[in-house]
This record gives sequence, C-alpha cells and structure tokens, in this order.
Amino acid sequence: MKIVIIGGVAGGASAAARARRLSDDAEIIVLERGAYPSFANCGLPYYVGGEIQSREKLLVAPIAMLRTRHRLDVRVRCEVKSIDRAAKEVTVHDLESDKTYSESYDKLIIATGASPLRPPIPGIDSSLVLELRDLKDADRMHSLATSDAKHAVIVGAGFIGIEVAENLHRRGIEVTIVELADQVLPPWDHEMMAPIEDHLQAQGVNLRLQDAAAGFVESDSGLQIQLKSGAVIDADFAVVCIGVRPENKLAVDASITCGDRGGIVTSENMLTCDPDIYAVGDVAQVVDFVTKQPVQIPLAGPANRQGRIAADHIFGRSSTFRGTQGTAVVGVFGMTAAMTGQSEKLLRRSETEFESVYIHPTDHAGYYPGAKQMTLKLLFDPTTGRVLGAQCIGTNGVDKRIDVIAMAIQGDMTVYDLEEVELCYAPQYGHAKDAVNMAGFVASGVVRGDQPIVHETVLESGLPSNAFVLDVRSAAEFADGHIAGATNISIEELRDRLDELPRDQKIIAYCKVGQRGYLATRVLMQNGFDVSNLSGGYLSWCRSSESRNVDDSIAC
Amino acid sequence: MKIVIIGGVAGGASAAARARRLSDDAEIIVLERGAYPSFANCGLPYYVGGEIQSREKLLVAPIAMLRTRHRLDVRVRCEVKSIDRAAKEVTVHDLESDKTYSESYDKLIIATGASPLRPPIPGIDSSLVLELRDLKDADRMHSLATSDAKHAVIVGAGFIGIEVAENLHRRGIEVTIVELADQVLPPWDHEMMAPIEDHLQAQGVNLRLQDAAAGFVESDSGLQIQLKSGAVIDADFAVVCIGVRPENKLAVDASITCGDRGGIVTSENMLTCDPDIYAVGDVAQVVDFVTKQPVQIPLAGPANRQGRIAADHIFGRSSTFRGTQGTAVVGVFGMTAAMTGQSEKLLRRSETEFESVYIHPTDHAGYYPGAKQMTLKLLFDPTTGRVLGAQCIGTNGVDKRIDVIAMAIQGDMTVYDLEEVELCYAPQYGHAKDAVNMAGFVASGVVRGDQPIVHETVLESGLPSNAFVLDVRSAAEFADGHIAGATNISIEELRDRLDELPRDQKIIAYCKVGQRGYLATRVLMQNGFDVSNLSGGYLSWCRSSESRNVDDSIAC
Repeated sequence: MKIVIIGGVAGGASAAARARRLSDDAEIIVLERGAYPSFANCGLPYYVGGEIQSREKLLVAPIAMLRTRHRLDVRVRCEVKSIDRAAKEVTVHDLESDKTYSESYDKLIIATGASPLRPPIPGIDSSLVLELRDLKDADRMHSLATSDAKHAVIVGAGFIGIEVAENLHRRGIEVTIVELADQVLPPWDHEMMAPIEDHLQAQGVNLRLQDAAAGFVESDSGLQIQLKSGAVIDADFAVVCIGVRPENKLAVDASITCGDRGGIVTSENMLTCDPDIYAVGDVAQVVDFVTKQPVQIPLAGPANRQGRIAADHIFGRSSTFRGTQGTAVVGVFGMTAAMTGQSEKLLRRSETEFESVYIHPTDHAGYYPGAKQMTLKLLFDPTTGRVLGAQCIGTNGVDKRIDVIAMAIQGDMTVYDLEEVELCYAPQYGHAKDAVNMAGFVASGVVRGDQPIVHETVLESGLPSNAFVLDVRSAAEFADGHIAGATNISIEELRDRLDELPRDQKIIAYCKVGQRGYLATRVLMQNGFDVSNLSGGYLSWCRSSESRNVDDSIAC
Repeated sequence: MKIVIIGGVAGGASAAARARRLSDDAEIIVLERGAYPSFANCGLPYYVGGEIQSREKLLVAPIAMLRTRHRLDVRVRCEVKSIDRAAKEVTVHDLESDKTYSESYDKLIIATGASPLRPPIPGIDSSLVLELRDLKDADRMHSLATSDAKHAVIVGAGFIGIEVAENLHRRGIEVTIVELADQVLPPWDHEMMAPIEDHLQAQGVNLRLQDAAAGFVESDSGLQIQLKSGAVIDADFAVVCIGVRPENKLAVDASITCGDRGGIVTSENMLTCDPDIYAVGDVAQVVDFVTKQPVQIPLAGPANRQGRIAADHIFGRSSTFRGTQGTAVVGVFGMTAAMTGQSEKLLRRSETEFESVYIHPTDHAGYYPGAKQMTLKLLFDPTTGRVLGAQCIGTNGVDKRIDVIAMAIQGDMTVYDLEEVELCYAPQYGHAKDAVNMAGFVASGVVRGDQPIVHETVLESGLPSNAFVLDVRSAAEFADGHIAGATNISIEELRDRLDELPRDQKIIAYCKVGQRGYLATRVLMQNGFDVSNLSGGYLSWCRSSESRNVDDSIAC
C-alpha cells in the first residue's frame, strides 16, 4: 500500500501517524509545501505576542521524529502541482531543488487546508499588509511586533483577528480592529458579544465595527489604511484576517467534486468522489452534526479526527466522521468566549424552529472568593427539547460548560437531560446546581410551559402597546436603572399587590438575571395573569440595548 | 396541599423552593433543627481556613428571604421527634421555647441528611475532639484555628478530612492526618492517590496511613491522640471525619424501610414505602446510575435534584431520579482530584467485568506556557466499550475532563464516542486531541484488539518468568531509571533490531506515558510478536511501585 498525503499539518499529520500504526509496511509519503510539517498553527499568535517565547516549541512533531519514529517519508518544501486521477499519480515540485517529478499512489489524502482570503483591495500586496497562516508569516509579524512599531490595524475580528489583537497589544502596540459585521467574532450571536466588545475597548483596543478596509497605501511613516467609511488610519502595519477558503485548486483541477463554499465534498469516511482519494481538514466539506447539512468549519480538532478516519478507511476500518459541532473557544484579553452547535443566526438562516434562554450564573459558588459572572445562552428545539447549541462568555469555567453541552449535543440529549447532569461540585469548582443544570431547568420550564419567556428583542422598538412591564426587583435596584415604563413591585410584595396588575394586558416580568422573574411568572400564572418572564432579565436587556446602541435614559 | 419538610439544607431547601414555584397556594413548612436553613455546608472548611472571610456569606438563603420571597413557613431550631404515619402528623420540639407540638401533613419530605460517625473511642466526647457538620461546628473550629493552636490531628482522609487539613494548614497549624485505609481519599483507586499523597507530604502534612485513633486524652497542653499503632501524638485539638451515616432515626422509628447502610429506601420519584412520605439527600438510599444497585453517596448535587423531583412528584409531575453517578471533586492544596461513575475497587467488589487505561496528558497544549501533566484513568466495559467510570488528578482542567466523562456516562456512551468528542480547543484551553479523546483512542484500541495492554500490577511481584520487558524510550531516559530487567531498544531503532526480541516470550513494551509503547506494540504485533503495552507507561509503573512501597534500585 502506498499512501500519498498532500499537506503535513493537523489532518495530514494525523492521517500519516494513524496509517503507520495500522500498517508498518505501508509506504507513506507526506508532501508538505512549507518548511515544517505538523507545526502548532494555533500557537502562532502567542508566539508573536511573546507568551510562547521559544519558536522551537511550535515545531510539535519535528521532521526527524516523523521520519525515524514513524518511518514517514516526509518531504518538506514539496508542492503538489497536479493530480492525475487516471494514472493515480501526483506531480510534485521540489521547491528546494526546483525539480519536478511524479509520485504514484494507491491512496491519496488531500490535506491542503485553507488559505487566508486576500480580497483585491488596492495596496493589499504591500509587504506591510500581513496575514497569519504559517511560521513564515509568524516570523514576519514577530519581527515587526518586536521592532518599534506603535500601531497596527487588524482587518477582521474573527478568531485570528482577536488573538492577533491581544498579542500585538501585549507587545505594547496600539491596536485598531476593523470588522465589516456589526459585532466581533461573527460566529457568535450578536447580543452575546456586547460584554466582549466592552472588554476590548476597556483594554484600549480601538474597535471599528461595520467598516472595512478599502485601500492600503505605503507612506514614509508606515502604512495608511483607508476605510470604507472614509476614515484613514496611520499604522506601522496591517494584518488581514477576514477568513479563509479551502485550498481546493488541486481538487478542482482534477475534477474532484467541491461544494458551494469550495470545500471538497466528502463521505462519512472522508472519501471524495474518487474512491482512491480522501480529503480531510479545512479543505474538506463535511456535515454539521446537528443539522446534517454541508458545512465548512476550519477547526483543528475535527481535522485531526478526520485524518484518523481517512487512514482507518484505507485499511478497511469502519470509522465514520459524525459531523462537526463547531465547538470553538477563543481567549480575549483574559475573557473567554466559547460555543458549540448551532447559533441563533444559523438556525434563523436555515429556518429551523428553536427557542433560547439566557442565564448569568457565576462560575463557582458565590460565597467562595473569585466567583465571576458568566453568560450562557442555550438553544434548543421548542417541542422536543433537543439541545441545538450553546454559547458562553465570561472569565472562568466557560470552556468547561461548553464542553459539557458539546457532550449533550453529541449524545442527542435534551434540556431535560441537562436538568439531571451530575457534574463535579465543590465551592471553588462549581455549584451544586451547576450553570448547565440551571440552563436545563430554565429551558425545560419553557418547553413544559411552566415558564413562558420573552426575549429582550421584543422590547426593541419600545414597549408593545398591550404590554405591562413589571420589575420585581427591590426599589433600590429599580432606582438604579430600569426598563423605561416598567412598574416596580418587588417579588416579596407581589402576592399582596396583585390588584395593581392588569388582567387584560400581557405582563412581562423581569428581575436582574431571571430568577426572581421566574418566580413572579409562576405566581402570576397561578393567579390567572397572562405573563412571561424576560429571559436573562435586566442584564440581558441592557446588553441587548447596548448592542443595538440604544441611547436612552436607562443606566445599565 | 400541606407539605412538611424535615431539614432545611440542600435537598430540603430545594424541595421547598420547587414546591412553591409549582404551587403558590400550598402550605409549605420547613422544620430545621439548626439555627440556619440552607447554609453553605460545603463552604465550612474554607471559612475555618479564612479563604471565605465572612461568615455571613455562608448563609446562602437567609430565613427572611425564604419567608418573604418564597412564602415558606421556615421554623429553625425546631426538631422533629417522631412521625405518626397513621395520623399523618409529626411531633415537633421547638428548642427555643422548649414547647412540643404536632403538625399535620398531606405530604412529608424527610431531608435530615447524614451525621458524622462518632465511633466509641475513649475520650471522643472531649470538647477538643471536633467534627464538622454545621455552622456551630465551624464556629468552634474557626475559633480554635485562629487561637494559638499549633498542631491538629485529622482522623479520616476523606473529602472533609482533606479539606479541613488544607484549611488548618492555611492557618499555620501543623496537621497530621490519620487514615485507616492504605491511601487518602478512599473513593479513588489506590494507585491514583500516590501523587496526591506525595503532594500532601511536600506541603508538610504528616500522613499516617493504615492507622486509626484509639483514644483521646485531654492533657495540660491540649489533647493526646493515641493511635492503634501505639504512637501518641500531642496536639491542640483533633477533628474526626471518618464518614457519615444517614440520619434515619425518625424513619426507623416510624417503620419506614431503610437499606443495609441505613439510607431510606426510595423509588425513582424519591417516594419511601409510605405513599405520602418522600426522602431526599444524604438520608436517602438511591440507585447507582451505572450499576442500578442501591447506593448511599452523600453529595450536594444529587440532593438538590432529588428535592426538586420529590416536589415535582407531589404535584403530579413525572420527573424521576436516574441515579447517582458519584461525580465528585476535591481540592488538595492546589491539586485537584475528581471522579465520576464506578471505581476499579467498586467494580471488583461487584465482580463486574471491566478494563481500564491510564493516560498522562497535559491540561493544555504543551507548547503554551503553564501546561501541567495530569493522570486520567478510564474504566470501561471490555466488550461493549461502555464508559463505566473515570478518575483524574492534576493541577488544572481536572474537573473539566471528569465533567465531560460524566456526560458520557449519563448518555450511555462508549469509548468509541469518546474518540469523536468535540471539545473547545485553543492552545491555552486544551488540545486538538483532548485528554478525553486520547483516553477514547487508547481504550478503543484496547476494545478493538489493536493494542493489548497490561497493567503495572502484573509486574507487582517482579517480572513474570515468561515475560520480556522492552523499554522503547531513549538510552538517556533508560539510564535515568527503568523497570528492573528491562531491555532498552528505542522506538526509533526498534524496526531494525527485531531479531533481538524473543518470539517465544510475552513482550511487555513500555515508554514514559504509553504513546511510544503503543506504537511499539503496533509494530511488534504486525511482525508476529506476542506483545502488550504497559498502560500509562513508566510513570504509572513508578506510581504504583510507590503506592506499594516498593523500595528497589529504581529511581522514578
């Protein structure tokens, strides 16, 4: 068996190692265009920022190890130029010797990854307009970041944009982030990002949302970045990270079927339309675990698993890739944003029925020092309660809760299952009723009809005319800020003041985070009122107002 | 509906709050013997140690709030003396007024918890022999800990013993822990505790395993603790925390069925043998989620869920308690030990077939600063691969991995499912192949027969006569310490030196943590050798030797 693998990072490297373990006889050739196979690409921003000091550390699996330990025929600086499917061979250009040769295969694995988008903006080819894909890019950025550069512009506020911003900032460089969308980290839902955006600005990051780069002009003092809005920013350099696209040219040229977004269409065994060619990692189109629809999500974890699965299938194993959940995490100047499964915006786009709840629990028991509030949004099927997705932001324990919910999604669990989750509890680690249990309680209450909820978005354009907004917090909390037009009756007094409430209007109850509002909703429902609880309470409402730039008299 | 709840902490408080939300009309009476309902009993050790400074913070749900917000009739310092099931009433002794009265119920919930075991050791009634169950105990210990006490003896190295030890040590008090078992934290498997015991000793804790208190004698200078071993320790005070037993007297007196360990037998709705009486929390016997066998595990999370479920059932809801997984975590002077599901010792006791694997991954990518090694043991069905339990120790990310595996157990998942787990990954949070994936890979390899393993215990009494022990690490690693009698051929050279290996002996391959050993096992299997990998490698072997007190020439 002769296996040729195009690309030696993540998916390609995993496929090679797995293939070797399955067959010590197989001839396994890894053709890597760059100088290093299996480098730590997720670590590049942190090398730029100095958090990772040693460049050596980024070389996770050095070539020598791959060659001697795994007996892989690793060839770096070797670019595959074409695939001849009929002859079952690839044409290889050795960039070092500048020689070109053919290499035959029994099985071919395409693991070429995805390359940064470089839109045709005037001046984008300037050497001061960087991207961050490989070690070469990181070296260049590292050298600029440790020079006397004072200001950098990041175009794109996705994962890499945010990580690069954090790391340049760590080097003492002033950072401006320009993002076309009206939020940072576009995969997350809009309202979840308000605290992240506040945090970025509090760190001194300049955030320019709903704007984009229109041109780059080299100047005596560095680089001028012209924005669509007309603004012009002077900087030492710019980094463009507005997304990636599958590096599918080899596949397209060889008439291997690709999807709408450019990814190579694969079976659950990672097989392409050619029974001898597999595609894994960022270049492959896979299915979404939740929706079973085609999806293109560049993530290291799935890439690694896909590599294993392709190797398994080559050797007759029945492993299958079950789809990508899109589980992701990003550190943002000490905060964390994590998500798994479907977002609200994806569910809306696919016109899938869903409901969502927000909670704002602390990461561990409030009576134990250091507890920090986080915000957890849970998305679920309003009928069956099936968990569809979750997003969480905060300081501590965010990744843990998303990992737990990722397991719920993998196990096709429901919000009722989340009620019964049994997690580690000691006061410094969590809650006897963990954030995940709480999300399960709230969501189950909604599915069971115990607790009708409304979302802050219903209040978007002022109060609905038929609504009576009831603030059940204390008078002191109310005085500190409230939804305009709300009536304040504290939960403690509510039962004695029912006659002050209208029986012909829809009552929207709220408190700070939703718990007292829930109790109020229960009390009022049992007394015959038409009532809903504002999910996530005043805190969610404030954040939503903020993310809509509502500027009224309300102090949040 | 008139509901009487005996006990106002955890399970009792949860039942009361849930019942109120389900019915705003119900009369709900909470009878609490102590002075405080719903206090943070898991926080008591940390109040003693000063980590939690304010005693106020321990009063999670103050009486006033329960009364005004939830309209609960909370009566503290009220002890129930008896239950009259025929008359459906309880006799209450108001400790404040010293009056006794009857209170009728439609539904009764027993949430009396569990009380510390006080074996009949001479002198145990001394005021210098403490226990830690409630605020009163914590106040007493707090006052001793902040006096000029210099030395304390903790009898029992369970959760509370370890937490008390840590917190007294934080106060500058020298601590000796006496434990009857041959390990600390008896719920964990023996070999998992070696690093924890090392860590305790490194912190200056005196550890006396396989010993027990035989007598307490007050002396001029404090307290003399006489041990079974004959040793005598002078201390200022002692704390006895050798376990708890269900506080079942009321139930027993009322002929409510209890199990072998004293817990009140309950249905999945938390109903006792009496259709109007429920039992929840530490006083209840429930089933183990994995084995479906009766079990008695005092944990706050299940207690809270059981309280909800009892209330649900009272109001005609169909919620059921699915059993306890025994998910638990404990902080040990900056380290963490966590577990979920069955341990090896429980599986052996119930003669359940199982297999286990050990891995020693870091909590996050090794190239990102601060990565710490942890040890994860996964227990699973050797035929179906069903996940039965897991234990983990380390510094960071331990609770997260156990939470993830707790979800796998709840979802009846297998080790094959763990291979496909998709968790949050960025280098400061985890690995593209997370510890849980790795455990899944290794365990699946075992179930599939790709990787026969042996455990360090097979080497317990020296090498089996027919075994050839092969160390596949580097010569330098080998020189630094190895299993006596092992032959060193590095994985890099292995394929070229196959003729040095016996074809008529069982080969046991090992490396540092098991990864190179796995590759060696694959290479040798494919070359026709009878080979197994030592699970967890040399590191597991050293720990196991250490926990067996093997004192030979091997430097670990």
